[in-house]
Amino acid sequence: MTFKGLPTVFLSLILVMPVRADEGMWLLNDPPRQLLQQKYDFELSDAWLERVQKASIRFNSGGSGSFVSPQGLIVTNHHIGADALAKLSTKERDYLREGFYARTPAEELKCPDLELNVLMEIVDVTEQVNAAVKAEMSPEKAAAARRSIMSALEKESLEKTKLRSDVVTLYQGGLYHLYRYKKYTDVRLVFAPEQQIAFFGGDTDNFEYPRFNLDICFFRAYENGQPVKPEHYLKWSKRGPKENDLVFVSGHPGTTNRLETLARLIYRRDHSHPYTLARLRAMEALLRQFAELGPEQARMAAHDLHRVANARKAFSGQYQGLLDPAVLARKEAEEKKLRAQFEKSGRKDGPDPWVQIENTQKKLVSLERPYALLERGDAFWSELFGIARHLVRMTGETPKPNADRLREYRDSNLESLRFHLFSPAPIYPELERAKLTLSLTFLAETLGGAHPLVVKILAGKAPGTRAEELINGCKLIDPAERKRLAEGGVKAIEASKDSMIQLVRLIDAESLRLRKRFENEVDEVERQAYGRIAAVRFATLGRSVAPDATFTLRLAYGTVRGYRQEGIELPFHTTFGGMFERAERQRFREPFDLPPRWLKGKDKLDLKTPFDFVSTADTIGGNSGSPVLNRAGELVGINFDRNRHGLVRNFVYTEEQARHIAVHSAAVLEALAKLYDAESLVKELSSRR
Amino acid sequence: MTFKGLPTVFLSLILVMPVRADEGMWLLNDPPRQLLQQKYDFELSDAWLERVQKASIRFNSGGSGSFVSPQGLIVTNHHIGADALAKLSTKERDYLREGFYARTPAEELKCPDLELNVLMEIVDVTEQVNAAVKAEMSPEKAAAARRSIMSALEKESLEKTKLRSDVVTLYQGGLYHLYRYKKYTDVRLVFAPEQQIAFFGGDTDNFEYPRFNLDICFFRAYENGQPVKPEHYLKWSKRGPKENDLVFVSGHPGTTNRLETLARLIYRRDHSHPYTLARLRAMEALLRQFAELGPEQARMAAHDLHRVANARKAFSGQYQGLLDPAVLARKEAEEKKLRAQFEKSGRKDGPDPWVQIENTQKKLVSLERPYALLERGDAFWSELFGIARHLVRMTGETPKPNADRLREYRDSNLESLRFHLFSPAPIYPELERAKLTLSLTFLAETLGGAHPLVVKILAGKAPGTRAEELINGCKLIDPAERKRLAEGGVKAIEASKDSMIQLVRLIDAESLRLRKRFENEVDEVERQAYGRIAAVRFATLGRSVAPDATFTLRLAYGTVRGYRQEGIELPFHTTFGGMFERAERQRFREPFDLPPRWLKGKDKLDLKTPFDFVSTADTIGGNSGSPVLNRAGELVGINFDRNRHGLVRNFVYTEEQARHIAVHSAAVLEALAKLYDAESLVKELSSRR
Repeated sequence: MTFKGLPTVFLSLILVMPVRADEGMWLLNDPPRQLLQQKYDFELSDAWLERVQKASIRFNSGGSGSFVSPQGLIVTNHHIGADALAKLSTKERDYLREGFYARTPAEELKCPDLELNVLMEIVDVTEQVNAAVKAEMSPEKAAAARRSIMSALEKESLEKTKLRSDVVTLYQGGLYHLYRYKKYTDVRLVFAPEQQIAFFGGDTDNFEYPRFNLDICFFRAYENGQPVKPEHYLKWSKRGPKENDLVFVSGHPGTTNRLETLARLIYRRDHSHPYTLARLRAMEALLRQFAELGPEQARMAAHDLHRVANARKAFSGQYQGLLDPAVLARKEAEEKKLRAQFEKSGRKDGPDPWVQIENTQKKLVSLERPYALLERGDAFWSELFGIARHLVRMTGETPKPNADRLREYRDSNLESLRFHLFSPAPIYPELERAKLTLSLTFLAETLGGAHPLVVKILAGKAPGTRAEELINGCKLIDPAERKRLAEGGVKAIEASKDSMIQLVRLIDAESLRLRKRFENEVDEVERQAYGRIAAVRFATLGRSVAPDATFTLRLAYGTVRGYRQEGIELPFHTTFGGMFERAERQRFREPFDLPPRWLKGKDKLDLKTPFDFVSTADTIGGNSGSPVLNRAGELVGINFDRNRHGLVRNFVYTEEQARHIAVHSAAVLEALAKLYDAESLVKELSSRR
Repeated sequence: MTFKGLPTVFLSLILVMPVRADEGMWLLNDPPRQLLQQKYDFELSDAWLERVQKASIRFNSGGSGSFVSPQGLIVTNHHIGADALAKLSTKERDYLREGFYARTPAEELKCPDLELNVLMEIVDVTEQVNAAVKAEMSPEKAAAARRSIMSALEKESLEKTKLRSDVVTLYQGGLYHLYRYKKYTDVRLVFAPEQQIAFFGGDTDNFEYPRFNLDICFFRAYENGQPVKPEHYLKWSKRGPKENDLVFVSGHPGTTNRLETLARLIYRRDHSHPYTLARLRAMEALLRQFAELGPEQARMAAHDLHRVANARKAFSGQYQGLLDPAVLARKEAEEKKLRAQFEKSGRKDGPDPWVQIENTQKKLVSLERPYALLERGDAFWSELFGIARHLVRMTGETPKPNADRLREYRDSNLESLRFHLFSPAPIYPELERAKLTLSLTFLAETLGGAHPLVVKILAGKAPGTRAEELINGCKLIDPAERKRLAEGGVKAIEASKDSMIQLVRLIDAESLRLRKRFENEVDEVERQAYGRIAAVRFATLGRSVAPDATFTLRLAYGTVRGYRQEGIELPFHTTFGGMFERAERQRFREPFDLPPRWLKGKDKLDLKTPFDFVSTADTIGGNSGSPVLNRAGELVGINFDRNRHGLVRNFVYTEEQARHIAVHSAAVLEALAKLYDAESLVKELSSRR
């Protein structure tokens, strides 16, 4: 489309009154009522909002879901359930690959360490947090004061409400909200399809459309040994969405970077993303090689491999976006406007925050890699290392006053941390050795073989030898040993001869020094600067721009609509029939092989059943498993992906081609009834209280 | 083994009279006669040596082979024939995967661009080369003088003998020898097995032992439309080698770095290897993703994927070696001795060469990556780019005097270059686009998105868009268009609107500037310094240390012997039966699936037939396809790999566990006769002149 030749009056109309795009991952306590009224003639009622909020579920393993029956039945994606599926599997029975169905409650399988959260309440605590941080404080003092007030607010809330309480930073430091969650830790597996149908097309089709995935999984929440009766749940729509329908996505988008400054994005382009891509490629290559060693190794590595390959594809797409001058030009134009506004305001509240953020990027150049390798743990890709570090630090931190501890050891977080730390989920030494060898090698590649940290960590051995010695000398594979050390406190840790505990102790001082530098010199400075940028934005644009994603509950909306790609009109939904055609064209080669149930059962299915569909609603990773809702608040789909045009959504939202992708609610019923003989499940989804 | 407690007399005996290890890739004009006499009681006769030399063949696509019949039949590895197999394949007929057998000469398939070389003569030209380079010359002048004399010697030799003539640098600059080759460019495919049996176990078993690969391929050389009658060929041993037999490997090892200084190896560890590993992983990931798009894409990418995955595994092993302090300690000790010798000699011939080399590494830190990306072409992973650059440069260089040209455009090389450049071998635009997108992305990752070179090359587009435009706007896929431009000379190039030609012209000045810097500031300085180190070595150790590998003919020797690994004694050979067991344990999953011929034909085979075997002979990449010979000079095997303990051979030779791996000569006969009904081939291999 070109404006050339348009009469000036039209041109200015377009510039003045653009139809607002469906951008935004909106806060539940600040929803876009007016926008929905204007564009879609939809009135967002408090009752609608409360029902959706309390039926929505956060999977702490990294995704979203929702209650879909009065008996605590939960739907999410197969790839979100995958963590639990892998942990429940054994050499003899591979639920991740083969699927699972509990025909009776007694057959449901309890997940070893799955925690679910339901958001009950949001309280704005911005004033309290900001009041604790005085203008005259050094960044170090300010950061400590901020940590301290946040931990205190959380503890107070937990004690008062018994609800999990987290202070969430919004607008990169513009607002602080306290989120209160009801927590479920007795979660049982009800149903999962075979991985081949959940992830049909594998890496090839990931982030693409048209798609053909039954990417669903059902769990049930229990309390006191009984199925939960949730206050709210979503009704399952038998018909699903029609073309051009307004739909909503309610879920927990993980991270976006749309409100970051240009300097920060350029830093990501030139430093963080190349580093991350190199790391992910190394990890993926290792996992593929490990999986090829044999069928059992393939099973052990399957879940890690899926996650890493998914991240690699996502980051590659983001990076292409960052290299696209059009994307950065758009960010530059936005920033220019905001900075002009700041100048106009007389810059009265201190130094230029954009310059401050630019300066922190210069510090990051030398700090980020050692920080990521040591403190974020990139050099130690091992479950046992993560456990060992928590044991060393938890025993050291918990004797301190709550306000002085590292964030993850604050009182309000300890229960969740212990639940995770003492999990009986299996750990595979063979896989641990391979992963640790790779990450120690990557450490040397990144810092150089003569770097003091590398020399210290490798301790005079090649990475493979060192990894072998560390894993073989570690007893933490046994949860009882973890409990023994946790209960024994600092004394037990200091006396421990465990190789992994000793590795943590060897590097922890340096690691914490890097963390302090990061928190004081980068994070705190940025929080304050972004806080002042947010103030300019609020003053100019009000709350018309949603905050970046923070893995907390958000509401997005959009239109069910196909799009044009390379000259072809893609319809808004695919069908079962389309999938069989694609499998055939690919000669049923992996990853286009179908489970025997589907190959044999083809004739039982209505091949015209809609399978997956797309809408313009604004989603990102973390939204996986989110319910897609219609105006009536019924579940019409389960979001599981976005297309490649949507990969740049971390930085900019576009709706010409970018779409999220969801499993159609009718496809689920058809498959459950016709192929899985899951009549009781179908009945439960159709029941009405 | 430990020396603790041994009587001193024994200890000193061990230190004084070590049995010399089977190290060395020996020059054919300076063979280890004395060593063979002492250790193996073998007298290396001139006749034996001449026969082996003239029966040995260099595959210019990157490997080795040998004449094995009086009718010009040649054996090499399947993975060396793979380049030709891929180029001969089409969508309809995939010879690389499915194999090939010409039952009659008429069915043999002519390879589009395969050049073979047979070494006829070696002349020492060290004095002439060194005489042309005067001590008072600047490095730039010295490099030019050296290039000039080398090109002149080659041209003179070519004119005199009509043989391909290459001056080879040995000992990194210690010696210069002129190699004269008979050249074959009409080479026809005779036989290849299926890739599944040639590369059974795939990446998993690559560089491992026990192994089960029929990694062989037969070609025939023609001249004037008739099969060549070679002066010498190797007799095929029906029995193959026995345990503890002395064997020889005659072939073209590509590159080793054993005589490099410690500073150079540390530079490799901290700079070159991390860069190369990151690049190879990115390339491998791209090819795997491309291959997953569909069966035809898998075919297009298969050969590249095999090469890249092989290199990734080789470099990973090398890098583990460089990170092993024991390896560098050994190099350090050797270097210390040599430097002491240099000091003792009064350092009379100039500055310390080790210090000079160390200083060049400092220059390399900022130079190597831009040089590798632009001039080595790492940023332009595309056949079409390579072709475009040759066209631009060849038309510019050939009008200059021979002595002033870039090395690859010297008169004596032009025939081979044109043969390659005008090859009708297929180029796949879809694969080209994917590879170029990846490498342009890697360019940005490596230098940063704002680097002037990146901005210039991407021309305001994201890498994917830019690659698409470059491949779509390039007509060089048609060899006739290449010829038209080559014949049209500089004028035609300057007038060309071809996108790839224009890209080359856009960056060529900068690329050549980087090359000049590399040649003058690094290469020439190192040649002179290594020349002086070589002089110290010759004075101290004589010629008892073989030069590093240079992809020229070398002779290695060793003992056929198994080894102990993780407590298990591995036998010196495997069997067909062992392969069927391994395939079954792996449930015949890829890459352990067997061709139908093998599955169905199992009962026809003698399962006790030796399949692959190992020896201690000193090999490296480039030796693939080398004949393994017994004392009588008969072919007892075809070398195709080394085990993982041998990956560190680039830097140090060990023989406790490191082995090369070869296909047993008896396995070839058994498979050809029993499974491939290749009676005529078996007969030809058994014929005696």
